[in-house]
Amino acid sequence: MGFVMDFFTYETPKSVVVKSWTIGIINRLLQLLIILYFVGWVFLHEKAYQTKETTIESSVITKVKGFGRLRLSNGSVKVMDVADYISPPQGGAMFCIITATRVTKNQVQGFCPEDPTADKFRCGNDSDCRDQGTHQVGNGILTGRCVQFNSSLQMCEVQGWCPVEVDNSHKEVMTDAENLTIFIKNSIRFPLFDFAKGNIVPDITKDYIQSCNYHRDRAPFCPIFRLRDIVTWANQDFNTLVQKGGALGIKIEWICDLDKTEDKCVPRFSFHRLDKVSESNTVSRGYNFRYARFYRYPNGTEYRTLMKAHGIRIDIMVYGKASRFDIIPTVINMVTAFTSIGVGAVICDLILLNFLKGAEKYKASKFEEV
Amino acid sequence: MGFVMDFFTYETPKSVVVKSWTIGIINRLLQLLIILYFVGWVFLHEKAYQTKETTIESSVITKVKGFGRLRLSNGSVKVMDVADYISPPQGGAMFCIITATRVTKNQVQGFCPEDPTADKFRCGNDSDCRDQGTHQVGNGILTGRCVQFNSSLQMCEVQGWCPVEVDNSHKEVMTDAENLTIFIKNSIRFPLFDFAKGNIVPDITKDYIQSCNYHRDRAPFCPIFRLRDIVTWANQDFNTLVQKGGALGIKIEWICDLDKTEDKCVPRFSFHRLDKVSESNTVSRGYNFRYARFYRYPNGTEYRTLMKAHGIRIDIMVYGKASRFDIIPTVINMVTAFTSIGVGAVICDLILLNFLKGAEKYKASKFEEV
Amino acid sequence: MGFVMDFFTYETPKSVVVKSWTIGIINRLLQLLIILYFVGWVFLHEKAYQTKETTIESSVITKVKGFGRLRLSNGSVKVMDVADYISPPQGGAMFCIITATRVTKNQVQGFCPEDPTADKFRCGNDSDCRDQGTHQVGNGILTGRCVQFNSSLQMCEVQGWCPVEVDNSHKEVMTDAENLTIFIKNSIRFPLFDFAKGNIVPDITKDYIQSCNYHRDRAPFCPIFRLRDIVTWANQDFNTLVQKGGALGIKIEWICDLDKTEDKCVPRFSFHRLDKVSESNTVSRGYNFRYARFYRYPNGTEYRTLMKAHGIRIDIMVYGKASRFDIIPTVINMVTAFTSIGVGAVICDLILLNFLKGAEKYKASKFEEV
Repeated sequence: MGFVMDFFTYETPKSVVVKSWTIGIINRLLQLLIILYFVGWVFLHEKAYQTKETTIESSVITKVKGFGRLRLSNGSVKVMDVADYISPPQGGAMFCIITATRVTKNQVQGFCPEDPTADKFRCGNDSDCRDQGTHQVGNGILTGRCVQFNSSLQMCEVQGWCPVEVDNSHKEVMTDAENLTIFIKNSIRFPLFDFAKGNIVPDITKDYIQSCNYHRDRAPFCPIFRLRDIVTWANQDFNTLVQKGGALGIKIEWICDLDKTEDKCVPRFSFHRLDKVSESNTVSRGYNFRYARFYRYPNGTEYRTLMKAHGIRIDIMVYGKASRFDIIPTVINMVTAFTSIGVGAVICDLILLNFLKGAEKYKASKFEEV
Repeated sequence: MGFVMDFFTYETPKSVVVKSWTIGIINRLLQLLIILYFVGWVFLHEKAYQTKETTIESSVITKVKGFGRLRLSNGSVKVMDVADYISPPQGGAMFCIITATRVTKNQVQGFCPEDPTADKFRCGNDSDCRDQGTHQVGNGILTGRCVQFNSSLQMCEVQGWCPVEVDNSHKEVMTDAENLTIFIKNSIRFPLFDFAKGNIVPDITKDYIQSCNYHRDRAPFCPIFRLRDIVTWANQDFNTLVQKGGALGIKIEWICDLDKTEDKCVPRFSFHRLDKVSESNTVSRGYNFRYARFYRYPNGTEYRTLMKAHGIRIDIMVYGKASRFDIIPTVINMVTAFTSIGVGAVICDLILLNFLKGAEKYKASKFEEV
Repeated sequence: MGFVMDFFTYETPKSVVVKSWTIGIINRLLQLLIILYFVGWVFLHEKAYQTKETTIESSVITKVKGFGRLRLSNGSVKVMDVADYISPPQGGAMFCIITATRVTKNQVQGFCPEDPTADKFRCGNDSDCRDQGTHQVGNGILTGRCVQFNSSLQMCEVQGWCPVEVDNSHKEVMTDAENLTIFIKNSIRFPLFDFAKGNIVPDITKDYIQSCNYHRDRAPFCPIFRLRDIVTWANQDFNTLVQKGGALGIKIEWICDLDKTEDKCVPRFSFHRLDKVSESNTVSRGYNFRYARFYRYPNGTEYRTLMKAHGIRIDIMVYGKASRFDIIPTVINMVTAFTSIGVGAVICDLILLNFLKGAEKYKASKFEEV
């Protein structure tokens, strides 16, 4: 019975009450500061009462529209459509708009002299044509022979697809590329909160989509982006990009406070040059890749057209952060706040027992020796 | 010496012991509540003693198998295999099963009248054929001329790949697509815990794989997914999807408590329509893209077959969350728990000094004025 | 006035001072331990004064260079370049180097006997040729007829692309693949801190890039990776990988303490086999995919070359963690540290009031009954 009695006694610390305006005001001011910090900064500004989630499920479907003109080496004009200049064609989050191409036609497997514009492969005799480094930079495997390119020039011979690509040959550059438009359909879902949304607002009409162009202020809900605008907003020079190629990023940010109405949860688009940092040095500027189209002669021999394609590569990157009221972080942060108020008392005690008039008296009252 | 002595004195707060059943029971109840909350919710349910990690390294290899039938416009049947209907072919985490195609054969560069089904491009004279908007929606660049399509119809002329795609022309739809199967090989690794696993369990046999179909309950470890099942589980209508195209997501979730045995760490598959939110409005339903196959006439002229492909695009998305016991969150949460018990005392003090019988007496004992 | 007076009184707990070396030393030791833990582990080692960010924007541009040799079935040698062995060609973060190919030429739509090496499709009469399972594993749709393959062998007939792929036919394997090099350009950005960097250091020269090969110790800033090295570092056998195919991961980790100088924020490369876990069982080893090249006979009939490509698939995965001093976690962790010191007092009280000589006396002084 005495044990149960003991268990249910309540202990509360005995306090010394100091009737001093100085320490009283300091104490209350400190408490006020701490409360203000937690209420104002931690709770209202940083929203410590919410759970935050950055995992996002995202699906991006894109569609490029428009036509470009290509002036061929024979002077005629070729009209390029989506099936010509988009690679890969699937309409995913990453694609490349091919804006300039160096075409090498009718290549077949065989032996031929190297590109005459490559000084490295000019030769006087066979001994100049041995592979030196580990990095193979030519257009084929060196055979070790030095052969006549024309009456005045000798070049090393290579085995591979012949004739080889010539570095300063005509590059077909697409004009009118600035008017190409990119349609972006992005659906996202925050799995933790089971909240889904898309960038195409429900009340949008087909007519609007057929005439609008995205603009941050004037048309923030238009899902059509003009290529020229994207390049401009990324602070790049359009003509350089068309000639040399480059990688642009379209970033879609969904920052959603789910305690507010759904209308406030809208995507924010921003545009960057992705390979910008590497641009600061002279090595490997621009963006290009090689691919080939394969054909067959009637006798069955395979031949190909090699394409060195410069283009604007576009990566659509989706990020998101959703937050919603949750009891656990609220409790934890409130406990931290309460505890922090206690920290103020430590400072007050320091002042009271050391710097205040009558400190000795307070010390005598506060401490009781055994 | 006196300084050292002072340093090693121990101060402990002087307590007032209140022998009151009321306040004693309230105090213990409050403490019990707080302890229950921390032990039950924070530690056992939320597993606050663990470090959590959502960074996951994942590799997805897919392989689609099966055949579809295509009834061509001339009545013959074409059998489609993987190399025909999968794009891109690399077996990555994103691919498209082309289920319906509008084929426009033998296109060459030139001038021709627009698609006769497009009312927008019907014309009486040349002035009707000027490009109005910024969005080029036709099949080529308008030349500004109005030309005869047939004896009764005049259409605007375009420059580009001719003849142009006709919007209501025969669409080849693949039948038997429901029996296509998708094999998914997913290997993951949690780098923080250096824990790796795959969705193919070690004791699976080749025979089992050749006959099984994934089912959440009946065959949760079968890595073969029937296309029809995926569409059904995503609550979509198979025939609409085959005709119009759409994007489906296969989500693989690895939620692993590494304090338990490895067997319990298994992937959970779920199936969604990814472009669902955008489906709620009438703009841009379905999923399609255009691509072309390029050929050469014996005289060297390039021609192409344009394909407008509708298909089921599948995105395999892998998410993971691993957790394991860690001393740091354990200590931090235990300190928070201990501290929270102190918060109970604040409430008890309030009751004791204000609402309890004999409050004045308690106040006198607790507070000592200086 | 009395109310305001009351509000500004300061209460401080009355303390009992125990002049005992034992408890004094225990108390200070406990406090020392707690402080050491927080300063040493939580603040210095775990850097609890920093905000951490794992969201990273990343762009990867790759370029493969080099040549491989293919010995064709007729004995001649074909030289493979980038446009032949890379798929897809865009130079993204995921690509496949095709190292071995089984080629089936001149396929047209029609009816033909199945692959003679597939025991499953050998037949005596038509009834052996009914489709049994749901998984279609042959090379076309079974017609249900058993036809003569040659004078001695009868096979089931299929409808599809004919002739069908034969499983043990000549596989063209690329030699010299070990010298292929992969150039990786990776630009990253931590959006929270607006910090951007790339793996190509500003003072790198074109000459250096043309001769260097990445090595963890000897050339950590060279962006060129030799294929053989990657395979070796991933602990794989090169020849097996070339024959069977497989998925390798190149992981780029950016772990950046932004309180230090920018030079210290460098990428760390590591190399893994991604489908390693699945390798532990016998099902579905390696990596391969099928694709086709389409041609037209002069009369317009389509034919194709089917390729079963084994290859080394490379996934470049970028992870990052940046951290920088931030006032909020600093304050929260300091409050936790202070509070934890109080936890030491609980233990000291336990010892003082129960196990120390003169415990009864201390109890009498500490507790005052009401």
